[in-house]
Amino acid sequence: MARLFHVPLSPYCRKVRLSLAEKKIEVELVEERYWEQDPDFLRRNPAGKVPVLRLDGQIMSESAAICEYIEETRPEPALMPKTPEARFEVRRLVGWFDDKFHHEVTSKLLYERVNKKVTGQGYPDSKNVKQGAKAIKYHLDYMAWLLDHRRWLAGDQMTLADFAAAAHLSSLDYISDVDWNRSQVVKDWYAKIKSRPAFRSILADQVPGFRPPPHYADLDF
Amino acid sequence: MARLFHVPLSPYCRKVRLSLAEKKIEVELVEERYWEQDPDFLRRNPAGKVPVLRLDGQIMSESAAICEYIEETRPEPALMPKTPEARFEVRRLVGWFDDKFHHEVTSKLLYERVNKKVTGQGYPDSKNVKQGAKAIKYHLDYMAWLLDHRRWLAGDQMTLADFAAAAHLSSLDYISDVDWNRSQVVKDWYAKIKSRPAFRSILADQVPGFRPPPHYADLDF
Repeated sequence: MARLFHVPLSPYCRKVRLSLAEKKIEVELVEERYWEQDPDFLRRNPAGKVPVLRLDGQIMSESAAICEYIEETRPEPALMPKTPEARFEVRRLVGWFDDKFHHEVTSKLLYERVNKKVTGQGYPDSKNVKQGAKAIKYHLDYMAWLLDHRRWLAGDQMTLADFAAAAHLSSLDYISDVDWNRSQVVKDWYAKIKSRPAFRSILADQVPGFRPPPHYADLDF
Repeated sequence: MARLFHVPLSPYCRKVRLSLAEKKIEVELVEERYWEQDPDFLRRNPAGKVPVLRLDGQIMSESAAICEYIEETRPEPALMPKTPEARFEVRRLVGWFDDKFHHEVTSKLLYERVNKKVTGQGYPDSKNVKQGAKAIKYHLDYMAWLLDHRRWLAGDQMTLADFAAAAHLSSLDYISDVDWNRSQVVKDWYAKIKSRPAFRSILADQVPGFRPPPHYADLDF
């Protein structure tokens, strides 16, 4: 069986979990305290990061590369469109969320509030938290602008771009940092993706010391 | 003709320039002072970053997505291998350089020494510079370990992984931050890639206020 070394609230791990689940690939989840830099773990991944996936006899790291591999070896159901133009748009948006959104929002909110505590690095820096809380509004508005024109973020079908975005937003929703009242189209989009069977394991996540708000796992939030 | 909005020492822009040149796609280079956040530029790319490429009537951002698009629409000469396993390894290494190497090395050396001055953000932070100078040794050793087993970084053919790595290293070489005596295999690899016609425009780059060392453009460095 496939095995994923992960931490529950990591958006990169969640994106891989969503891809695996959507394609019905069974996976054993193993929580990895990657910040302790265990030698066994570093042997599996010299980058020292999660996710690390064992699949098809290989040990794989880098979430974007993993998702492309899963897509190429298990093309159904498709999480990438067919034309180069549409595929470009998916990859652009995956980059948007995993680079820009992560830098401006996730690292400022989730890392300050959760990762610092879990890894023993002290208290949240309120300047960062304020910046993140401001930036997420701009990103939600950008998503709303996209979703005014499209059924899903990158076009008319659900793709890896939706999983990348939902991975970040679901992790932030766990700590009540998403204002779902800001945009109805974004809320509707999240309700659609949240109700997929692939999302169930993510809604069941529990992080000791951090209790999710009641709406976190509620499909009618 | 294609048009690339770029800055000369950006590794992400250089990676795209190398891909375009290797595939003999003529491009007009336009320097973009992206940090001034010109409204015209932000209309082209709401992420506010370079590179931005105009190609096939589209405006494209995110260097990884751009390179995959070029590869899909101009498959020859191939910069990606054929099997999913080998393609995974290319993408893993592109991620390694564009994320980990960038975070640990490029942002600590190039950004401190050059970007801060160019964008009027003051002087290099010597703590960061020291960290970057230490981290690059570890990365050169990792490259040497890969190249002990392989002709090119991701396998037996030259790929986007080599371009990602060469893009970062060439930018750092411009400011004399690469110790080419650390590893003979890495130096040989760089000599091979540096002598390709696709590299010429990069070796001709000039940044006002920063003169490259004599070996920068020398093929027998």
